Amino acid sequence: MNGVTEPIRRHRTAQVTATVTANGAPLPDREVLLQQTGHQFLFGCTDFESPADAETAEPAADAPAGRWLELFNFATLPFYWGRFEPVRGQPDPARLLRTARWLTTRGCVVKGHPLAWHTVAPEWLLDLSNAEIAQALTARIEREVAGFAGVIDAWDVINEAVIMPIFDRYDNGITRVCREMGRIPMIRMVVDAARAANPQATLLLNDFDMSAAYECLIEGVLEAGIRIDALGLQSHMHQGYWGEEKTLGVLDRFSRFGLPIHFTETTIVSGHLMPPEIDDLNDYQVAQWPTTTDGEQRQADEITRHYRTLLSHPSVQAITYWGFTDGGWLGAPGGLLRADGTTKPAYEALRSLIKEQWWLPPTKTATDAAGRLRFAGFLGTYEVSALGRTTTLRLDRPGDVAVEVDLSE
Amino acid sequence: MNGVTEPIRRHRTAQVTATVTANGAPLPDREVLLQQTGHQFLFGCTDFESPADAETAEPAADAPAGRWLELFNFATLPFYWGRFEPVRGQPDPARLLRTARWLTTRGCVVKGHPLAWHTVAPEWLLDLSNAEIAQALTARIEREVAGFAGVIDAWDVINEAVIMPIFDRYDNGITRVCREMGRIPMIRMVVDAARAANPQATLLLNDFDMSAAYECLIEGVLEAGIRIDALGLQSHMHQGYWGEEKTLGVLDRFSRFGLPIHFTETTIVSGHLMPPEIDDLNDYQVAQWPTTTDGEQRQADEITRHYRTLLSHPSVQAITYWGFTDGGWLGAPGGLLRADGTTKPAYEALRSLIKEQWWLPPTKTATDAAGRLRFAGFLGTYEVSALGRTTTLRLDRPGDVAVEVDLSE
Repeated sequence: MNGVTEPIRRHRTAQVTATVTANGAPLPDREVLLQQTGHQFLFGCTDFESPADAETAEPAADAPAGRWLELFNFATLPFYWGRFEPVRGQPDPARLLRTARWLTTRGCVVKGHPLAWHTVAPEWLLDLSNAEIAQALTARIEREVAGFAGVIDAWDVINEAVIMPIFDRYDNGITRVCREMGRIPMIRMVVDAARAANPQATLLLNDFDMSAAYECLIEGVLEAGIRIDALGLQSHMHQGYWGEEKTLGVLDRFSRFGLPIHFTETTIVSGHLMPPEIDDLNDYQVAQWPTTTDGEQRQADEITRHYRTLLSHPSVQAITYWGFTDGGWLGAPGGLLRADGTTKPAYEALRSLIKEQWWLPPTKTATDAAGRLRFAGFLGTYEVSALGRTTTLRLDRPGDVAVEVDLSE
Repeated sequence: MNGVTEPIRRHRTAQVTATVTANGAPLPDREVLLQQTGHQFLFGCTDFESPADAETAEPAADAPAGRWLELFNFATLPFYWGRFEPVRGQPDPARLLRTARWLTTRGCVVKGHPLAWHTVAPEWLLDLSNAEIAQALTARIEREVAGFAGVIDAWDVINEAVIMPIFDRYDNGITRVCREMGRIPMIRMVVDAARAANPQATLLLNDFDMSAAYECLIEGVLEAGIRIDALGLQSHMHQGYWGEEKTLGVLDRFSRFGLPIHFTETTIVSGHLMPPEIDDLNDYQVAQWPTTTDGEQRQADEITRHYRTLLSHPSVQAITYWGFTDGGWLGAPGGLLRADGTTKPAYEALRSLIKEQWWLPPTKTATDAAGRLRFAGFLGTYEVSALGRTTTLRLDRPGDVAVEVDLSE
């Protein structure tokens, strides 16, 4: 466990004593092959482009989809209502369902994003009354959540509710309803709709506002008895890396609620920084925003620091990197791949963390005279092989664990 | 009504048709003297210094206490716990009770500020467990609110709850408890204690945070079923006047809750502005912060604009100016009087609004052939005199009103 910090070791790894048995008897002094096959931690990324086109065939390892699968086990798929159903009554679920299945068959957890948001709301809502908008919204939520249940069982149910009722950049149906209902009744309405459509789903609030405003909203939602499964915190760092102190401060404030935390939208650019005076990131419109050699090195360093900080806090269960390839949102060089598909140092840095420092490669070891072997491993799934047989071991809580590994035929 | 803007006319004045009668019969063609004796609107100020020393004697008109009474009908008195009870079990209510009575006998409404706040919390709380702090806090609230009931029936119950659990400038007992309980349970606890001690009291939340954070907190409090009687909004403008657009935006966002709004703490300085990069106003420590001629003119203009903007919105029921005389909090030249007790242009500007533009001076008029007279007046109390007799008329809602004024002996 070289390079693994003490908090990460404490919260993310198990110290395993495994008794290897076959047909009820320990297997002493036996050579065993151990290898990790998955992470419990959700290492996520948006996945808006590539694998959908790949249909069922395996992508090449050096194709974007192959690069993506090499690192990630968690995908965020786009359900922006205005694009999903630009004409009322004509939604387009087929392509997303194919993509989601493609990902789940490869072991990924898939999350839909978002169900309720004032941005990219359908234009046709503007012709409806507020009561009709609310009805259309809950119907759309029930349709998507039920329609994708079993494939997508995690949802960013409501996005940016802190500003939802006071968003004043342009008129939209969701702000109208939220202003009339209030944030908390709106959240109750959309969460109830999603919960009813898929009681097994993991339902998130998601926000970019890291101030006390989001804290106050969460507190109000929980006091109102609305069940939320995880808190989504965005961290688009187009204006510069937060640094450890700010990140730990955010974690301290948002972990008070006792809920799992997902870092849902993380971006660190490998080009120049967006000027600090920009308030709404969408206001920064530039013709060219190139990736640079220095920027790529900085990005790699900062991503390493950010992921290490987040994994050091036990509340964090997921990190989703936002934008796998350069040139997506805002044209920013925030990807892990350049626009030409080549990997940046940040990609290599993340691979080094996720698949080297925090990963047990195929390891030959042996049981002792009592049939036991000891190892330390990151929480996740493992294959244990001996006697020409293989079984799966799942490590799902940190610290000392004693397990039996049964290799009976 | 020269200089009265249309929104102020609409929300703050009544168009009165009064039938003047005596012994059941109209009094036609009779000379009548009308004069306003009070405002319904609460024009407030802090009052930490002067009248308390004046005991029961009337202050001279040009003494600070006389100047104060000339403008204001609403006083905020200091109940900072750490000063009120610096040694546990030895509170000092006598001086404040004398001051409060002095004010109420002169027709003023008196409010206590604040009951729960992390700043100026007693040092001795630090020796208690969180449960003991909570118990001491509710006991202190019940003691003050019950002890002053009938004299002080309005309270800033909790101050700055948005940052209360995350305040990190120094350790204090109130932050400890709020962090453990959460803001909303804390608010419930202190409001319940105050309500039980004086069911007739007007109870406020009060905050300087005008962002969505305070909105979210208010929404959570109301959704949790906690009754609040008015929202307190601070507007310390040491770093510059907000301007009409920001002020109207704040009013728009905070009026959504349907509660009366009090502007509880308004300051506009008549010297140089505090630099914009100062985040916590308390961090600005200067040896001298003089009032200037130009600054005094600007202050007068801005105070006029601010009061006009606030009275134009029907939700606002009170404005408290913070610091009657220069040299109070932060040593700022934020007063309406200079340190030597002379009046600034801002004092004269406020007097012009409160006692001239928004005030009916003694006015001779006459009833018509049916015994009626018509006038427009600001909401408040009036004396109507004829036949050598005088009665009181109260105007308490805007718009057209028909009243009978009975001058029977």
